Amino acid sequence: MTTLVGIDWGTTNARALRFDAAGAVVEMREMPLGILRVANGDFAGAFAELAGDWRAAAPGAPVLLCGMIGSRQGWREASYAPLPADGAALAARLLPVPEIGGWIVPGVSGESLAGAPDVIRGEETQALGALALAGASEACLCMPGSHSKWVEMREGRLSRFATFMTGEAFAALREHTILARMIEGGVHVPDAFAAGLARARLPGGLLHHLFTVRTDGLFARLRPEAAGSFLSGLLLGHETIAACEAFPAREVVVVGSEALAAPYRAAIEAAGRATRLVPGERAVAAGLWSLARAAGLVGGAGR
Amino acid sequence: MTTLVGIDWGTTNARALRFDAAGAVVEMREMPLGILRVANGDFAGAFAELAGDWRAAAPGAPVLLCGMIGSRQGWREASYAPLPADGAALAARLLPVPEIGGWIVPGVSGESLAGAPDVIRGEETQALGALALAGASEACLCMPGSHSKWVEMREGRLSRFATFMTGEAFAALREHTILARMIEGGVHVPDAFAAGLARARLPGGLLHHLFTVRTDGLFARLRPEAAGSFLSGLLLGHETIAACEAFPAREVVVVGSEALAAPYRAAIEAAGRATRLVPGERAVAAGLWSLARAAGLVGGAGR
Repeated sequence: MTTLVGIDWGTTNARALRFDAAGAVVEMREMPLGILRVANGDFAGAFAELAGDWRAAAPGAPVLLCGMIGSRQGWREASYAPLPADGAALAARLLPVPEIGGWIVPGVSGESLAGAPDVIRGEETQALGALALAGASEACLCMPGSHSKWVEMREGRLSRFATFMTGEAFAALREHTILARMIEGGVHVPDAFAAGLARARLPGGLLHHLFTVRTDGLFARLRPEAAGSFLSGLLLGHETIAACEAFPAREVVVVGSEALAAPYRAAIEAAGRATRLVPGERAVAAGLWSLARAAGLVGGAGR
Repeated sequence: MTTLVGIDWGTTNARALRFDAAGAVVEMREMPLGILRVANGDFAGAFAELAGDWRAAAPGAPVLLCGMIGSRQGWREASYAPLPADGAALAARLLPVPEIGGWIVPGVSGESLAGAPDVIRGEETQALGALALAGASEACLCMPGSHSKWVEMREGRLSRFATFMTGEAFAALREHTILARMIEGGVHVPDAFAAGLARARLPGGLLHHLFTVRTDGLFARLRPEAAGSFLSGLLLGHETIAACEAFPAREVVVVGSEALAAPYRAAIEAAGRATRLVPGERAVAAGLWSLARAAGLVGGAGR
């Protein structure tokens, strides 16, 4: 029996989840149908591919969508809930998608560490889910990605967060600067990654440290096959130093796939914090279910 | 009469200078014949284009080349002189180019602020020239470029320096990240540049600040026509903060063209330092002449 259809609908991929009445995921599908890959804005068609058969078999089951599907480039632009935000606040702002009788979860906006605006969209659902899975009301979360998000949870609510453009900066610097000539391959080299983390702690700042990737290569101190891992460690080191200063906590819960989380856990542990992994797909499932409950879309049977 | 032919031979462009017996530049040419634009490694042909007629008219005049022409991708690879380096140390390491009876100025290698190697090639000549022009034996120099160089001069020698990849990082982030969508045009907007400088002083670090270029745009706090200047200010702010910490000095001498120097002077002055401009072409001319004298290639007539 299908009680809820949930979709974590991102920029590149979409992951559809079918829940039973107890809130357990009984089926999951991932497709390369992220919002930038949906041709001609045919999101209804993409939804049919993702979950049309589930919907047909259970026409009364509610549909809940989170992620970039609610952005300006998505199906329909959902607002941002202000901080602090809990499940009830997000549930109160669900945006209807009448075509499918569904709802889009709003993003959350806050103030960046530097006083400018900051936004998340999709991670709010994972954050609530990660907290529910931990059975806690407080946590410091790190969510790796091309834009990584650090989220502080207090009293069961998102209280503060910050975005770091680390992943995207890595790709741009790796491919489109003179460093591209120093770097070969994409295999993770743990020693070189650790050396990059260590360099981030030394004086000179990131823009100076970047040039040392070149000079270490010129003086044969860094092999081309290791230079990409070094650069990655350097950037994650800079992110982690700034984030750990902004978000003091003994433990950081890293939410994501094991492959994405591993270098982040190494970087955070090198900064002297404990880490714990919550798989991203489990976090998003728990988040969608708890939001559906908060919105009254599903009953209390999962309690 | 031609007493010396000097060429500041960079990656993109080459600038040829003809000196009289008093060390004054009597003619100057700039051509798009930087080392990456010389076809089939025909540097002798490029030299003929740049200064063949000068050479034919004064076959006995020595030729002195500085810059990337001495790099692995250049005509012939010149070594690096170690720090501290004065004119005599560089003159002692001139690399012959028998094809033209000329000499290439070595680069200088040192230790980066983070303990890795660091190198300059071309800026050593400008640094000695700028010091000679200032009639000083101590100075803190800033040399803007796609890789900017900060050089500390003590007792007439290069004593310390550091490279920042700011310009190249700007280009990669400007063109090859999501920020490209937020940025239009390339006109300098002073207010936005100053706002970027100011943001660099706030918490969160560069990788976090980068994302605020996007969010400021999303929330209509930053116009697309101003966003490029803001990003430039943000990056120069981060460079200047780190460099001013590493190179304490009341005054920073900025060596370069007025167009390149202006944003750097604004950034350095925002950090509370005085600045002075030395045009890059005057610095390189003075540096080439003083190195030619130190090497005994020209007489003491200019004294």
